[in-house]
Amino acid sequence: MLERNIENFIGCESSYEDADIVLFGAPFDSTTSFRPGARFGSAAIRHESFGLETYSPYQNKDILDYNIFDSGDIELCFGSAEKALEDIQSRTRIILNDNKLPLLIGGEHLVTLGAFRAVHNKYPNVHIIHFDAHADLRDDYLGAKLSHACVIRRCYEIIDDNSEKRIHQFCIRSGDREEFEFAKKHTNMNKFNFNGLDELVNMLSIKNVPVYFTIDLDCLDSSVFPGTGTPEAGGVTFVQLLEAILKVCKTNVVGADINELAPTLDNSGVSTATACKVLRELILGLN
Amino acid sequence: MLERNIENFIGCESSYEDADIVLFGAPFDSTTSFRPGARFGSAAIRHESFGLETYSPYQNKDILDYNIFDSGDIELCFGSAEKALEDIQSRTRIILNDNKLPLLIGGEHLVTLGAFRAVHNKYPNVHIIHFDAHADLRDDYLGAKLSHACVIRRCYEIIDDNSEKRIHQFCIRSGDREEFEFAKKHTNMNKFNFNGLDELVNMLSIKNVPVYFTIDLDCLDSSVFPGTGTPEAGGVTFVQLLEAILKVCKTNVVGADINELAPTLDNSGVSTATACKVLRELILGLN
Amino acid sequence: MLERNIENFIGCESSYEDADIVLFGAPFDSTTSFRPGARFGSAAIRHESFGLETYSPYQNKDILDYNIFDSGDIELCFGSAEKALEDIQSRTRIILNDNKLPLLIGGEHLVTLGAFRAVHNKYPNVHIIHFDAHADLRDDYLGAKLSHACVIRRCYEIIDDNSEKRIHQFCIRSGDREEFEFAKKHTNMNKFNFNGLDELVNMLSIKNVPVYFTIDLDCLDSSVFPGTGTPEAGGVTFVQLLEAILKVCKTNVVGADINELAPTLDNSGVSTATACKVLRELILGLN
Amino acid sequence: MLERNIENFIGCESSYEDADIVLFGAPFDSTTSFRPGARFGSAAIRHESFGLETYSPYQNKDILDYNIFDSGDIELCFGSAEKALEDIQSRTRIILNDNKLPLLIGGEHLVTLGAFRAVHNKYPNVHIIHFDAHADLRDDYLGAKLSHACVIRRCYEIIDDNSEKRIHQFCIRSGDREEFEFAKKHTNMNKFNFNGLDELVNMLSIKNVPVYFTIDLDCLDSSVFPGTGTPEAGGVTFVQLLEAILKVCKTNVVGADINELAPTLDNSGVSTATACKVLRELILGLN
Amino acid sequence: MLERNIENFIGCESSYEDADIVLFGAPFDSTTSFRPGARFGSAAIRHESFGLETYSPYQNKDILDYNIFDSGDIELCFGSAEKALEDIQSRTRIILNDNKLPLLIGGEHLVTLGAFRAVHNKYPNVHIIHFDAHADLRDDYLGAKLSHACVIRRCYEIIDDNSEKRIHQFCIRSGDREEFEFAKKHTNMNKFNFNGLDELVNMLSIKNVPVYFTIDLDCLDSSVFPGTGTPEAGGVTFVQLLEAILKVCKTNVVGADINELAPTLDNSGVSTATACKVLRELILGLN
Amino acid sequence: MLERNIENFIGCESSYEDADIVLFGAPFDSTTSFRPGARFGSAAIRHESFGLETYSPYQNKDILDYNIFDSGDIELCFGSAEKALEDIQSRTRIILNDNKLPLLIGGEHLVTLGAFRAVHNKYPNVHIIHFDAHADLRDDYLGAKLSHACVIRRCYEIIDDNSEKRIHQFCIRSGDREEFEFAKKHTNMNKFNFNGLDELVNMLSIKNVPVYFTIDLDCLDSSVFPGTGTPEAGGVTFVQLLEAILKVCKTNVVGADINELAPTLDNSGVSTATACKVLRELILGLN
Repeated sequence: MLERNIENFIGCESSYEDADIVLFGAPFDSTTSFRPGARFGSAAIRHESFGLETYSPYQNKDILDYNIFDSGDIELCFGSAEKALEDIQSRTRIILNDNKLPLLIGGEHLVTLGAFRAVHNKYPNVHIIHFDAHADLRDDYLGAKLSHACVIRRCYEIIDDNSEKRIHQFCIRSGDREEFEFAKKHTNMNKFNFNGLDELVNMLSIKNVPVYFTIDLDCLDSSVFPGTGTPEAGGVTFVQLLEAILKVCKTNVVGADINELAPTLDNSGVSTATACKVLRELILGLN
Repeated sequence: MLERNIENFIGCESSYEDADIVLFGAPFDSTTSFRPGARFGSAAIRHESFGLETYSPYQNKDILDYNIFDSGDIELCFGSAEKALEDIQSRTRIILNDNKLPLLIGGEHLVTLGAFRAVHNKYPNVHIIHFDAHADLRDDYLGAKLSHACVIRRCYEIIDDNSEKRIHQFCIRSGDREEFEFAKKHTNMNKFNFNGLDELVNMLSIKNVPVYFTIDLDCLDSSVFPGTGTPEAGGVTFVQLLEAILKVCKTNVVGADINELAPTLDNSGVSTATACKVLRELILGLN
Repeated sequence: MLERNIENFIGCESSYEDADIVLFGAPFDSTTSFRPGARFGSAAIRHESFGLETYSPYQNKDILDYNIFDSGDIELCFGSAEKALEDIQSRTRIILNDNKLPLLIGGEHLVTLGAFRAVHNKYPNVHIIHFDAHADLRDDYLGAKLSHACVIRRCYEIIDDNSEKRIHQFCIRSGDREEFEFAKKHTNMNKFNFNGLDELVNMLSIKNVPVYFTIDLDCLDSSVFPGTGTPEAGGVTFVQLLEAILKVCKTNVVGADINELAPTLDNSGVSTATACKVLRELILGLN
Repeated sequence: MLERNIENFIGCESSYEDADIVLFGAPFDSTTSFRPGARFGSAAIRHESFGLETYSPYQNKDILDYNIFDSGDIELCFGSAEKALEDIQSRTRIILNDNKLPLLIGGEHLVTLGAFRAVHNKYPNVHIIHFDAHADLRDDYLGAKLSHACVIRRCYEIIDDNSEKRIHQFCIRSGDREEFEFAKKHTNMNKFNFNGLDELVNMLSIKNVPVYFTIDLDCLDSSVFPGTGTPEAGGVTFVQLLEAILKVCKTNVVGADINELAPTLDNSGVSTATACKVLRELILGLN
Repeated sequence: MLERNIENFIGCESSYEDADIVLFGAPFDSTTSFRPGARFGSAAIRHESFGLETYSPYQNKDILDYNIFDSGDIELCFGSAEKALEDIQSRTRIILNDNKLPLLIGGEHLVTLGAFRAVHNKYPNVHIIHFDAHADLRDDYLGAKLSHACVIRRCYEIIDDNSEKRIHQFCIRSGDREEFEFAKKHTNMNKFNFNGLDELVNMLSIKNVPVYFTIDLDCLDSSVFPGTGTPEAGGVTFVQLLEAILKVCKTNVVGADINELAPTLDNSGVSTATACKVLRELILGLN
Repeated sequence: MLERNIENFIGCESSYEDADIVLFGAPFDSTTSFRPGARFGSAAIRHESFGLETYSPYQNKDILDYNIFDSGDIELCFGSAEKALEDIQSRTRIILNDNKLPLLIGGEHLVTLGAFRAVHNKYPNVHIIHFDAHADLRDDYLGAKLSHACVIRRCYEIIDDNSEKRIHQFCIRSGDREEFEFAKKHTNMNKFNFNGLDELVNMLSIKNVPVYFTIDLDCLDSSVFPGTGTPEAGGVTFVQLLEAILKVCKTNVVGADINELAPTLDNSGVSTATACKVLRELILGLN
């Protein structure tokens, strides 16, 4: 008797019950203002992961040695950002309730808001570590409050804590003047690179606060990662990103996402292959 | 002294005051469910029109001999379909109020709803002639009422006239079973090709009713027009479409649109070039 | 609790036990001499089928009303054609033994040989109906007997019946002179189009002989189906192919395949969309 | 001892001395106004011809049975159209002087002028049969007299014969009004298709006048041949072109060219494959 | 009443009268010897600039705070390099006469010659700072004196000053032996990178000589900027180029250009996005 | 009289007799497991080399000053890896017997095995210097012993020398755990970069042992070289590779190859241009 066709990220073959980490995809890009295509990101990562090894020579670890479950993509409504965010929040909540770590694969960056709402509900003292080329701190974008360009601003409003800066931004090199001025007051923004990350990780580790870790892959230089809606020159290399991820994994990460791969914008397939490798290293780093 | 850089569809050099036809673009594709990119359609048509002649050997007419104005693209919000439709309706109303014919360039097919609302306000007895591969008659799509897959259903609800079928569909070859059953009861659907168009045009001409003419370019065979979100084999040729357009232009057309060019999905540029030619022939046919 | 990620051809949601037709993919193209990529065909068809409806307005049938099972791709060795053929033969035999109809998705055309071996074992009096641009009747290709260019010649040797021509070829428009001379003696070759198909179907239906039906999608004109290893101008249209398939489905088809989609060779995605539609119509026609 | 790497159009393996037909390429596109790339046409045709058979089932002939020589591409100056034309004229003259038929592969259509000058020198009573989407009858293009858009006008001036129309144009569907008016007076223009070709071929055959045959491949429909600088919808199919070529080959053709393949504009490779097949059929038709 | 469609580089919204800097495009690539497409560069930069912010976090400046005017593309003749250069020279002269800084967007590198002629007329003691992968010092290229490969040699001849080296070249890593030998004698060539730029800038600043600044974007590494006619590995990063531009902007720049973006050669869009960012930083640096 | 069309790598114009180095291509990729296309590598390198100069400013040498012969591509069977390897071995042996240095252009990495067999026959004490992203040390891949993923393991078995490690690997960053464990015992593996190369070159130079030098171009970072079957982030830059090649050229290299360019996977052409430059520098370094 023949089996149905199952498609996982490579090596994620645990049962749901045994899993420590649960992957899920959010194929959504309706608010993308410039070049759409991030909706295809999660499926591409899953599909092309079979060009990758499960073993990492960087960490000397193998995915097959850990318990990871891939629950596939959520079927999201393209007509309504709010409805899509609710579905993402709901899936995240289920995973958190089962005491597993949710690992979201976008989709455009707005999807982070859905996951973060659920994480913040469970961990009200959560911090955000944010790798991105863009500040994503606009109050609205062409009139829309729920836009990829506003996602960290919306997260900031959820946190609503004036006692300390709980949003930590790295690699930022694009935004309008107002965003950079907002950041000066309200976030811990580190422009262009990962300067300051070591100190942050030490501080957060000592405090042992929960951390939500969101990686917009366009933090990478546009030569390294052309397949994204708004590629930005002047970014970091893969090895720099890898080292930074491993540092963040030393903190108490309680939820994470990678987003903004738009695979059809890079016919060479390199962006997808690189996203797969980032995800492999992130999974292994979280174990 | 040097001039600013103006970009029109080729030959549309009339002043607004003198113009009989006013073009405008609606770069919107947020509800596209399968492959986005129609947002780039109107700009591509305008930009690539310079590979075209203003003269048509089919009609022996030249755009330069007529008064056409190109008012450019509306800046639309990607976060909200309803807000985008309002902006399209508003631009259409201005043009109608000035007693000019609005000619809308999409964008995804949902944009038709904005233009049609304004046209129906002015001409409550308006009929729709609809060329498309898809029935677009769903009640909702993944929960969204404002979706490209529902646009003709929404237009049907605006018309709200049980005394006669006022929506006339041609070339339809895709949809779910319910759409085809809805069509049997409520629209005049002609599957696969333009059979029945001659009779329709005669009937409408005799009655002299106002007609809104909406062309989803995916009515063309997918070999002829690959650059669209959901290309469908089994469609019509360019010459068949051209002949059909010239027939419709014999009726009392009071508004029109062409939509669903997604130029980045066809690297060869042929889809854009073909859309340009369809638009040239439509403009000339309406004169 | 969350489910694993299952990926089927759209609407193929039957259990294996209930299924009448069983799909499987053979992602193999190692003997492709000109442009490889057919290995990606079956996965692309499955993945992109979600841009398709399950309902066919051509046949007024819906896949959801039938029992179809998709058993996914076989993992094949790229180093050895013989080993790959054995694995295909084995999967086909399982399906036949369970009294279901095997429907193979290539891969290059050589994969047909694996399926045909199993079919011929069960139905020694089987005929072959072959749609293709190429004769595929070479004795060897650059020294290789197991090559896509030789597949029908190998099938001919299995049949080994001089009493009648049991291989019926349509749309053939490419090959070397020897292949056309071989065909004159040993096969029923109909060049360029489907002339002769009506008579053949009548004859086979009257005799009620079992039929293996193999469709090399490059029988389609290269404008309709550019995404294939060796595209050939001068082929048939989608509608002509559709009508021919429905005719063949009136015979006693006991096994079938479609092959030679190389999706990465057509960035527009039209070839994959067309292959999906051909497969939908074939599935519905076989029911 | 090892040999140098020789690259011919497939099957063109005759010595120069024995050859009846001599191919040569003119990789030039400097006057292309819209989308360049025809410079890559001749090399692509030669390189990709190895995906083709030497045998034609249409004509039941094989290139290997004839004496054809491929003399490769001329190295042309991109800075000066006049200098490039001189080099093309010179190569053509050598071939004509050796009593062989010159068969030029473009490049943009302007290259025809170089070959035609040499042919007209030898055969002052020569006629031109011209297949093209474009009239190419402008007096100048943006101030340039030597432009692809003016090439037939320049040929007309060379002929300088008011006693009869010696330029016969087919498939024309683009140009400005002046070109069509010029054609009415000075050429035998047949718009859109091959209507009138049978009569022309009969007339020319009876008179036995020498014919120069120039094929701009964009006479083909843009779905069939997207890989060209200015693709035009509404053209002929491959089979229609093939039949027309075989008719022209019944006249006394003394020189010929095919041009305007721009291979990089069609990533699928279909345009190049189609150009190869057109060239094979033209070579065989001329024998 | 509706407005015409104006298309500027983002933020360049000054009137001509108020402008300090005037942009213009020269869509010319007729002498490109290898891969054409630079003709599309200026329009692509203008069109895609809307994916960019007007604010630079590198310089903490915003284009909206300055007076920049975009006068669009010159319509150039593709038949004659000399005629094109005259038109470029003429536009540059107008801008210089109005005491504004001309900022030319190519096109191939030859366009620099047109602008430089006008600049040299006004500032006979002008120096050239030249960033490029290629020496561009050939005396002729395949017989043409007016070729992109000769443009700096032609500028050298205009300067005609043996008392000092007035051409300063950086990042050069390609050319024939003669060019490098010419450079040893006649220019200040700095191979591979920006070594020596600090000293040069100091020297030129002290002397306060006028400087023409020409940036061939292929000075960037081919991974960073693949969309150019002759991409060269071994180049500089975006950040290195940015820092070098800001240094040059400390000198007395009286005219500038960026050139050799060929956007269709990089489907990912990254090259165009990078060119936009280089132009934004150059504009801000010049203010 | 006209000449046949000869196509060499640029500047390789020596006669075979005079040549010191002989190039040949092996267009084979049948065992490629992920993304095929390396079969097109050697022809693309030869064809696109005309965008390159023969002069290197890095080494201040010119190919025209040396005696290099290009013997073109071997016509290989796509059905059988063993047969292809025999043909490669045979060509290598001819070149070695004539006391020339064989320089093989792949094709997939498996082709190295054919060349190495011949080299090892002549030089039984040969060492291998191996630049690659992948360890290529698997015992088998999906059951195949002759696979690109096993090629260095097969070379290891030929050497069969337990007295010292004779395989020296650099830049390795992908493989399964078993390969890295095998390497610890049996090869001299240097992960990620060229650390250790200086010492190795010194040691080998002192011993003056013969060296076979195999360069899998995917040792380059995937941003630098996207056009390869399995691109891997985290690799070296072009300049790092260039410096490493020049170091290896100080040893007694008796045979070499570069492989795994898959040109159609990088539409921008940058990967092919970079491979051409690597080959130029390797040729010059070996002289």
